[in-house]
Amino acid sequence: MVINHSEVKVRYQETDQMGVVYHANYLVWFEIGRTNLIEQLGFRYADMEREDVLSPVIDIQAKYKYPLRYGQTAKVKTWIKKYDGFRVVYGYEIHNEDDQLCVTGVSSHVCVKRSNFKPISIRKQFPDWHEAYKKASGEE
Amino acid sequence: MVINHSEVKVRYQETDQMGVVYHANYLVWFEIGRTNLIEQLGFRYADMEREDVLSPVIDIQAKYKYPLRYGQTAKVKTWIKKYDGFRVVYGYEIHNEDDQLCVTGVSSHVCVKRSNFKPISIRKQFPDWHEAYKKASGEE
Amino acid sequence: MVINHSEVKVRYQETDQMGVVYHANYLVWFEIGRTNLIEQLGFRYADMEREDVLSPVIDIQAKYKYPLRYGQTAKVKTWIKKYDGFRVVYGYEIHNEDDQLCVTGVSSHVCVKRSNFKPISIRKQFPDWHEAYKKASGEE
Amino acid sequence: MVINHSEVKVRYQETDQMGVVYHANYLVWFEIGRTNLIEQLGFRYADMEREDVLSPVIDIQAKYKYPLRYGQTAKVKTWIKKYDGFRVVYGYEIHNEDDQLCVTGVSSHVCVKRSNFKPISIRKQFPDWHEAYKKASGEE
Repeated sequence: MVINHSEVKVRYQETDQMGVVYHANYLVWFEIGRTNLIEQLGFRYADMEREDVLSPVIDIQAKYKYPLRYGQTAKVKTWIKKYDGFRVVYGYEIHNEDDQLCVTGVSSHVCVKRSNFKPISIRKQFPDWHEAYKKASGEE
Repeated sequence: MVINHSEVKVRYQETDQMGVVYHANYLVWFEIGRTNLIEQLGFRYADMEREDVLSPVIDIQAKYKYPLRYGQTAKVKTWIKKYDGFRVVYGYEIHNEDDQLCVTGVSSHVCVKRSNFKPISIRKQFPDWHEAYKKASGEE
Repeated sequence: MVINHSEVKVRYQETDQMGVVYHANYLVWFEIGRTNLIEQLGFRYADMEREDVLSPVIDIQAKYKYPLRYGQTAKVKTWIKKYDGFRVVYGYEIHNEDDQLCVTGVSSHVCVKRSNFKPISIRKQFPDWHEAYKKASGEE
Repeated sequence: MVINHSEVKVRYQETDQMGVVYHANYLVWFEIGRTNLIEQLGFRYADMEREDVLSPVIDIQAKYKYPLRYGQTAKVKTWIKKYDGFRVVYGYEIHNEDDQLCVTGVSSHVCVKRSNFKPISIRKQFPDWHEAYKKASGEE
């Protein structure tokens, strides 16, 4: 299984008046993890969009265990939990610098045509991605 | 059961290059729903923070069924799904102007002290809120 | 001169760890003011984009005099300061509920083709908008 | 004069439906530049806040010359344009990977007490910062 390890330095803008990172911003970090995992596999999501295919989130979940703060750098771990040729399920773990687990997450994605948001088969439309995803998910 | 109905006009800033509302922004709309539901019950979250109590999200989930776009106004429905004196679980539904269901969500919250993020009992610390939450959740 | 008056209820997400609205978020409120001013003139910016014309910001300025906080509702005043058929310059003032002036701003915009970001003449391409803008700016 | 060079990889979340980075997000990148410049001078803004001193923006300006897109990495240049013991004025330039100048900016800041937002003298309260700022601004 391929795991991407990314670092994210907390931005002041990402905090809220609780003095910690605002909860929705961790979803942005998940996305950074996905972008980087895809690059680690040798692809670029921007290229997929150039072919008028989008990959929207259809389902997301996050559990908040410990807050992160401005001045800290987060470690974002991203991997492919499940892949079936259509749907990709990513898993996430965010740790702080003391290796405390702060946030966990799961998100599901499909690929759709930009024009009508109708789902397409990754296996058929992007056979290279398909092979890489199958391998990366450890299902082969 | 008390249900809050709020309207949110999509902001240009909330869109992304897919041409639709960026998925994490719906979590911000959930928060608008919570803020307004609390006001509908006769309280203000800002007052709770003035007593150095915060109410962080500990768990959030969203399912995306249909995209919303700039130029549209969303209808956000918020209610208390579950309440036990400590933890509040909110439910959400977001519809577009054609009454299509676009996003559903669930979030769980506890109350904590600002100084150490240790959980407190809502029932003990905020008896008025407790009564209102019990009633609003339909559990009484 | 036409002036748009909009109200914006501060979102928790818009605060930062200073306990006040994060400075860049006022630019989003300026945009809400612009959207509403355009609607007040009888148009919709979304319609302009449907004709593959965008109206990016080319210059923005904001002065911060007094902070706004969660729990407050801002009053955003927007007007057209200058218009010459190509460039639109908007002016902004944001007051709090006590009518204290909190933020002032100015932004300049042109219209461009989506395909290449080349500027177009509003006067020629959108004669209806042109007439409305000239009137609204008080230059006629 | 000290110049900080930071790199920012465009986040998908930072784009809008124009397909480019939303204009207000460049102000967040300015802030990343400031944070990093301060660290380059041997300080941490988080430490200043620990002493209950904040450094809000009182004035900001940005000029947009060329759009940045998802898939690109921006180069953010930050320096101290002016410093007088009270007010710090930062200058910014953002280039894309082809060294095209995309955005320029200027922001002014003072230091204030968290409790009342009253300005304080950097020279008196933070003599070490004062010396470093004077040097970094090239005024000594």
